[in-house]
Amino acid sequence: MSRSDLARKVCGVSRTIEIVGDAWTLMILRDMFLGARRFDDLRRQTGCSPHLLSRRLKRLEAERIVERRAYSDRPPRHEYRLTERGRDLWPVVIALKNWGDRWLAAPGGAPIELTHRGCGQVTRPRMCCSACGEPMDARASVVSLSPAMARERDAAGHA
Amino acid sequence: MSRSDLARKVCGVSRTIEIVGDAWTLMILRDMFLGARRFDDLRRQTGCSPHLLSRRLKRLEAERIVERRAYSDRPPRHEYRLTERGRDLWPVVIALKNWGDRWLAAPGGAPIELTHRGCGQVTRPRMCCSACGEPMDARASVVSLSPAMARERDAAGHA
Repeated sequence: MSRSDLARKVCGVSRTIEIVGDAWTLMILRDMFLGARRFDDLRRQTGCSPHLLSRRLKRLEAERIVERRAYSDRPPRHEYRLTERGRDLWPVVIALKNWGDRWLAAPGGAPIELTHRGCGQVTRPRMCCSACGEPMDARASVVSLSPAMARERDAAGHA
Repeated sequence: MSRSDLARKVCGVSRTIEIVGDAWTLMILRDMFLGARRFDDLRRQTGCSPHLLSRRLKRLEAERIVERRAYSDRPPRHEYRLTERGRDLWPVVIALKNWGDRWLAAPGGAPIELTHRGCGQVTRPRMCCSACGEPMDARASVVSLSPAMARERDAAGHA
């Protein structure tokens, strides 16, 4: 199976991975959440080559995760903004950040600190149950597969 | 900058991305959270070639995300298990799943459903503020950078 076959999987994780499961794409998203909007800023902050960055941004635009907006007519200039769909990838970046902060501790504490506008306190957002609100981890969850997903996995198991 | 330079960044997101920001690695993690432990199962479920899978698993082992355990002496057989460090990547996979479920809706509803052991209810874990417990999204957070991180970004900005 090639990487692009992931796009045709029933599993939404696979299809999401096909779109954003790439180091440069994740770096671009990180930088956009940190406020970068212009091609040159994204290039400098991610360290991505102009060619790769341009390809990644085109893909993100095609997936409606990012949109290009003109901010000057003369000379013609545009910037990149996250769409609602793009902003909804924030938990992915936060989950990566939390893991890095915990397991790859940098000297001098967490490099990026977040404050919650709602309560005004420093926060480290974490996964909580949508039903009861309690924090959740892998051991606290039981997985069940939809019939379509179970068939897909079963078919793979007998391939 | 090459991809491996990400490992030397101050930013924990960059360094985490250098380790797990890869489609096959994320697929392997997804499958391990779904219970896969054996090489052949991982190969079938991810669709990864044996060579690539072997390389990815070696890297995950080197990063202490996965550990190899013998389950038979004759013939010698081993399986792969997530370590605590590995299980702590669960929010990354859940965040990818949530995005896929929301934005790439599959026919027939969410392919994977989670139940919270704690409360017994079907759940869709979401990011909540660690201080006040309320659900949080990108717009609800204010970012501040540590001095080391600000210097790194500043240096890149002037490169």
